[in-house]
Amino acid sequence: MMSKKILFILLAITCVNYKSIAQQKSNPLKNDNNLFSAGFASGFIGGLYDNWYPYKELEKHGNFGLGAPGHLDGELLLLNGKIYQTQSTGKTTLVADTGKLPYAVVCFFKAKKVYKHAGALSKTALYSYLDSLLSNQNGIYAIHITGKFKSIKTRAFPPVEKPYLPLAAMLNRQHFFEHSDITGDLVGFRIPTFMEGAHISGYHFHFLSEDKTAGGHLVDLNMENITIEIDTLTNYTMDLPQTTDFNNFDFKKDRKEEIKSVENGKKQ
Amino acid sequence: MMSKKILFILLAITCVNYKSIAQQKSNPLKNDNNLFSAGFASGFIGGLYDNWYPYKELEKHGNFGLGAPGHLDGELLLLNGKIYQTQSTGKTTLVADTGKLPYAVVCFFKAKKVYKHAGALSKTALYSYLDSLLSNQNGIYAIHITGKFKSIKTRAFPPVEKPYLPLAAMLNRQHFFEHSDITGDLVGFRIPTFMEGAHISGYHFHFLSEDKTAGGHLVDLNMENITIEIDTLTNYTMDLPQTTDFNNFDFKKDRKEEIKSVENGKKQ
Repeated sequence: MMSKKILFILLAITCVNYKSIAQQKSNPLKNDNNLFSAGFASGFIGGLYDNWYPYKELEKHGNFGLGAPGHLDGELLLLNGKIYQTQSTGKTTLVADTGKLPYAVVCFFKAKKVYKHAGALSKTALYSYLDSLLSNQNGIYAIHITGKFKSIKTRAFPPVEKPYLPLAAMLNRQHFFEHSDITGDLVGFRIPTFMEGAHISGYHFHFLSEDKTAGGHLVDLNMENITIEIDTLTNYTMDLPQTTDFNNFDFKKDRKEEIKSVENGKKQ
Repeated sequence: MMSKKILFILLAITCVNYKSIAQQKSNPLKNDNNLFSAGFASGFIGGLYDNWYPYKELEKHGNFGLGAPGHLDGELLLLNGKIYQTQSTGKTTLVADTGKLPYAVVCFFKAKKVYKHAGALSKTALYSYLDSLLSNQNGIYAIHITGKFKSIKTRAFPPVEKPYLPLAAMLNRQHFFEHSDITGDLVGFRIPTFMEGAHISGYHFHFLSEDKTAGGHLVDLNMENITIEIDTLTNYTMDLPQTTDFNNFDFKKDRKEEIKSVENGKKQ
């Protein structure tokens, strides 16, 4: 009788243990408050477009974020662990996670605060409204916005070949897309000033339509009836490309103006 | 009989599981190639000297590195998982890991390359020699040097009270120590230029004598018969202080000159 009781207790403990191990083994690096970056922003923007970081590894560090495909073949967005690519043709597709990429920024998104806004908002008004919500000037925020876009303008770069030019030297190659009365998601971040260089400071969003057929890097918008989910992050990890091109990259050059022009889609 | 066998098997599995869980729980974030930072260098140097990060947490991220105690009460060094504090009196002690600190940079040190150098080296000659060994200008290197110091000069700050001044405004408060014919360890890093701000770029070493009675931030040296162990790191994590002082800190000010003067122990 006693041994059956012990048997039962041990069986229960064993099951619990296996569950714990499975959870930990499946994702030993999981940190809900970490902003993970594969690549260094000013290096990527300066022309490091070659693939080096496996999608499979990226999934260990986040299910939400944005990035770029190899050779700058459009724009990437991660939402609910799925990866979407918008090419310069406008074509938007679900990406298999078997390949690699040159640059991505991700986190495990958990909404810590949710806000609703009924009225119409331009991009400037949206950013002002977000500024009023995100009170910590030195905080890292992950931001997920869903709602109806009266209009939205996005962009994507066409694929490029070596020798690569800096993004800022290729702004005339951007393809722009304009959509009206479309529902969808904005996935992005607000990065504090002191992270400029490692990241792109300020707001940075990529778009995905609800039907997953349109997307791209956000350039402009007018929207209404939106839901804003905010996650606050407390640390960040930079995984640096172990490539000859990265090792030889000249970081001494001041690339702040390049970063701003690329972010806004136009020369400063 | 059968149930006894099952009992034994379950008991064995349970023990193995507990071992696995204990190992993982004790250090779920362990990454041998990560440079972990508690705090942001330019923020710390700008006056963020309050304790916020537990030593116990720091031990999960490294066993080798350097830092500062709360209220700038001297200098810290981590070697083989032990934490040593050198105060402005020169007193050097093993620190209990029960408290917190304002700033530290650590890694799990594993020597990937080992070099021996027999001849005499000044600090300038040592750094030139290290430059010849560390060929990746954009690489992160952890460096452990052991040997005989014909002479060594170190420094430590005395404890300060709020309102805190930036380190660069307190260089006249530094205490310097000079030792001759002393054996010991240098623990430090070479940080690439693009990480300036988040870290202190270039070489940065703290010293600990073999008998653990002397230490401090390295200012100058003459040494011979040295062993240099090098670890190459591929990523870095910044854990940011979740404090009002950090949130209010003005990072827009250019603090590069401050960082350099603090690193060298004198005004530029």
